[in-house]
Amino acid sequence: MKDKLTIIKVGGKIVEEPQSLNALLNDFAAIDGFKLLVHGGGRSATAMASQLGIETKMVDGRRITDAEMLRVVTMVYGGLVNKTIVARLQALGVDALGMTGADMNIILSKRREVKTVDYGFVGDVEKVNAQALASLLRAGIVPVIAPLTHDGLGSLLNTNADTMAGETAKGLASIFDVHLVYCFEKAGVLRDENDDNTVVGEITRQSYASLREEGIVTGGMIPKLDNAFDAIDAGVAEVIITKASALDNLSAGTHIK
Amino acid sequence: MKDKLTIIKVGGKIVEEPQSLNALLNDFAAIDGFKLLVHGGGRSATAMASQLGIETKMVDGRRITDAEMLRVVTMVYGGLVNKTIVARLQALGVDALGMTGADMNIILSKRREVKTVDYGFVGDVEKVNAQALASLLRAGIVPVIAPLTHDGLGSLLNTNADTMAGETAKGLASIFDVHLVYCFEKAGVLRDENDDNTVVGEITRQSYASLREEGIVTGGMIPKLDNAFDAIDAGVAEVIITKASALDNLSAGTHIK
Repeated sequence: MKDKLTIIKVGGKIVEEPQSLNALLNDFAAIDGFKLLVHGGGRSATAMASQLGIETKMVDGRRITDAEMLRVVTMVYGGLVNKTIVARLQALGVDALGMTGADMNIILSKRREVKTVDYGFVGDVEKVNAQALASLLRAGIVPVIAPLTHDGLGSLLNTNADTMAGETAKGLASIFDVHLVYCFEKAGVLRDENDDNTVVGEITRQSYASLREEGIVTGGMIPKLDNAFDAIDAGVAEVIITKASALDNLSAGTHIK
Repeated sequence: MKDKLTIIKVGGKIVEEPQSLNALLNDFAAIDGFKLLVHGGGRSATAMASQLGIETKMVDGRRITDAEMLRVVTMVYGGLVNKTIVARLQALGVDALGMTGADMNIILSKRREVKTVDYGFVGDVEKVNAQALASLLRAGIVPVIAPLTHDGLGSLLNTNADTMAGETAKGLASIFDVHLVYCFEKAGVLRDENDDNTVVGEITRQSYASLREEGIVTGGMIPKLDNAFDAIDAGVAEVIITKASALDNLSAGTHIK
């Protein structure tokens, strides 16, 4: 039987506010067994860019990352957000190690080709070095991963944190029994989007089709669930969509299997 | 017999200019055996602070680090400078891992007490986790260390890179045959400070006393050499003071034994 590994993805909003960050890290520290954290930081990057007089340009929710913006996200994601989390986790007794995809070459990506949009220094994940991550985990180390990868040619690349968490989960699925948790602003997939008490507890391939027909799963939730099922197909045990404040009870939220 | 470990300390000026950085990293990549890099980044931090409208205050060459400045150095040292180096080294086939003292708790420090000056979030090294560093090195990983430590209570602390390199060397001296190399703007300790061809090739405790009497070692070089002899006393095999551009030939420079 494979050992359980919990991968938590948490977005910028949670990690950028001291109060919600502290609550999150306390819950994360309390998770038993092997674990790994992937974080965002987009709001801080936008705020820092603005302070530096650099305009943030987004296309379909993705940041255009020119050379100047790459410097900003490298500072904010790889430095400020990542190392703040690491220092806090160490104080909570978690032997955290902050990493980007370049560190120990854990996540190699390819700069996105220019089709209609030039996203600049943005990477699509090509390869996860599961052995390197597994050896850290086995040594009792808890990787804390910032949303940056590298191209193997010397350049860092801005990379979507949701995708990094998903690819990391898939890459580690042959070694561990991987439970991938996406922290979200709502309690999970909701039957009534304004009511956190209407969480759909479990979604399978079969029920997913009917939830779409019923109009319960719509819009931005569709790509999230498509990605979740891709992870399941690649051997991930389950994908959980839940509220960051509910990490102390992972039986809540929506479980995709 | 212990394995050789080369620890290179390189200052901000070298790592902040693309050309000198590339030359340095090529030379670093070519060093055989176990190795570790400690870098600075003060000039970039000062420039970034200035862009953000934050005034840099120095006392005796040390940066006063209030909460705002701590954010800047965390971004610049831990993010921008560190991760840029890591991505470049990966492209050169070096399995680099960027770290601060908080990562894997490798360097714990104590916030400097306020005597006449309040340096703010500045740390003095208390403990180097030599076992953690040794296990990374034995696994073929090359630590790249930014000048930040932590207090174990959740806070990062700005820490002098020369001191971090020295303390890391001392900490690892019981495990490895440590050669500690300080890159400097000159070719070593010079008999004529304006002539790089007058390097004093070797300094021992005995010759150090006469070099001071002769007035060859003066000013800022005295604390550097005092620290070097402290490292030797703690078991470091030798301390080398040389030019960053001379890393391809470590037999040059001043060897302190």
